[in-house]
Amino acid sequence: MKLVRFGPVGMERPGMIDEQGRLRDLSAVVGDIEGRTIGPEALDRLRALDVSGLPVIDDAVRLGVPVANVGKIVAIGLNYTDHAKEAGRPIPEEPVVFMKATTSLCGAYDDTIKPRQSIKLDWEVELGIVIGTLARSVSESQALSHVAGYCLVNDVSERHFQNERGGTWDKGKSFDTFCPVGPWLVTPDEIGDPQNLAMRLDVNGKRMQTGSTANMIFACATLIRYVSEVMTLMPGDILITGTPPGVGLGMKPPVFLHVGDVVTLGIDGLGEQRQTIVADTRGA
Amino acid sequence: MKLVRFGPVGMERPGMIDEQGRLRDLSAVVGDIEGRTIGPEALDRLRALDVSGLPVIDDAVRLGVPVANVGKIVAIGLNYTDHAKEAGRPIPEEPVVFMKATTSLCGAYDDTIKPRQSIKLDWEVELGIVIGTLARSVSESQALSHVAGYCLVNDVSERHFQNERGGTWDKGKSFDTFCPVGPWLVTPDEIGDPQNLAMRLDVNGKRMQTGSTANMIFACATLIRYVSEVMTLMPGDILITGTPPGVGLGMKPPVFLHVGDVVTLGIDGLGEQRQTIVADTRGA
Repeated sequence: MKLVRFGPVGMERPGMIDEQGRLRDLSAVVGDIEGRTIGPEALDRLRALDVSGLPVIDDAVRLGVPVANVGKIVAIGLNYTDHAKEAGRPIPEEPVVFMKATTSLCGAYDDTIKPRQSIKLDWEVELGIVIGTLARSVSESQALSHVAGYCLVNDVSERHFQNERGGTWDKGKSFDTFCPVGPWLVTPDEIGDPQNLAMRLDVNGKRMQTGSTANMIFACATLIRYVSEVMTLMPGDILITGTPPGVGLGMKPPVFLHVGDVVTLGIDGLGEQRQTIVADTRGA
Repeated sequence: MKLVRFGPVGMERPGMIDEQGRLRDLSAVVGDIEGRTIGPEALDRLRALDVSGLPVIDDAVRLGVPVANVGKIVAIGLNYTDHAKEAGRPIPEEPVVFMKATTSLCGAYDDTIKPRQSIKLDWEVELGIVIGTLARSVSESQALSHVAGYCLVNDVSERHFQNERGGTWDKGKSFDTFCPVGPWLVTPDEIGDPQNLAMRLDVNGKRMQTGSTANMIFACATLIRYVSEVMTLMPGDILITGTPPGVGLGMKPPVFLHVGDVVTLGIDGLGEQRQTIVADTRGA
């Protein structure tokens, strides 16, 4: 299943992509796509549904974050050997954990707002894991049973704030619009092996990142096990799993994003994203 | 006003401490104490209420986190000169930001669960700020107008995971029960100047931390301004503002918490907390 949330920011409604690729409105069936509606039984009920009678929504509608009320975004750094090298960091001996503010979440095609103080705006295509059932100190063999689905994520990063403004990475990872998710939440049955998905990211049509989840240092099951030993993972939490090589910081010389640039990215089976970099014209 | 949430974990109801110090049930008046009910108008309505007719609740009831549905916990590190020194870190030139997982939240008197892998469990008394209205790139002069209230927080920290297990501090700050908040959310009119509050923390009855919010390097208004330039602060978000000297890591030799230890802490006007350190006996 491919689950979505569609509509204007803050007013998204639940939907599903049907077998013909059309967007169907699930509002009559489920209140929202969120932690309490993406457990195994709830997903089974959706799977058993005859959606042919549900309203078809115009493809031009905005898609929001495909899961609502995300409790936390746990992120893994330096999880691909070549990316650790390009970042000038040692290969981690255990998962590197940081967090992104939930206010950084946005839809897959929403603009990326370049912060007023930004001088090193960068990209990172990543596999996102959406948790379906509470996971606390789970074993690696049981870890993937806690997954509601997978999604495409751009872990947008401001390297100056991440690395040169004191403290942890979180500052540079947490600006508004720095976490586009989707377009879809894709259930595991459609994905098969999450460690064999091709990934790509282009800037203005030029390929920058090419990778595969096969090259993760710590696989999805290991990450879920590891993080669940540190903090309880709740339904609706998002775990993002690191990026392959090819980020702007790793170029020689480094390449960063400017207003007007367009970032497109994709992961096999999880769809594509497209963001335009825009200036911050919002008031206080 | 002193607002509270009382009842078993996950089933808390809204309440208020009346002028006689009794806990009154606000369930008939407001759905919960949370972002949408702690804006200025909502607080004015509560303030105007005649609570004498509302049910009095037995003092022995558990108090939970005094604000529900916290979207994020933004934390400031090394914000007292003497604490930066004892931590062996330079005085920061700008606020050091990290995040605590929302799953670390618990009530003021709940047990602190010592993680199975913990070897350096530590304490940090801190002033917490609860945001009442959306704050984005706010000026310092306007910053405090976005505050719904203040609260006492223990920024429980596992130094081994914070400093010696790779990556950012977030791991060592985010274990379950590592963020006791309360007992009360106290509105600013009861506090007066937030930069003149005495703070203290005892372990097993022995005074470990003594401080005052007067000694913050970056004051509350500066922190709100600074963080709001990086990420939008939403109603119900909690900003914790750093700890004065006297943490276990700074002792010579260092002192850490063990099962059975009791931590008590307080800030003038914000009440007191008490946590007993317990082993993690929870299943997966």
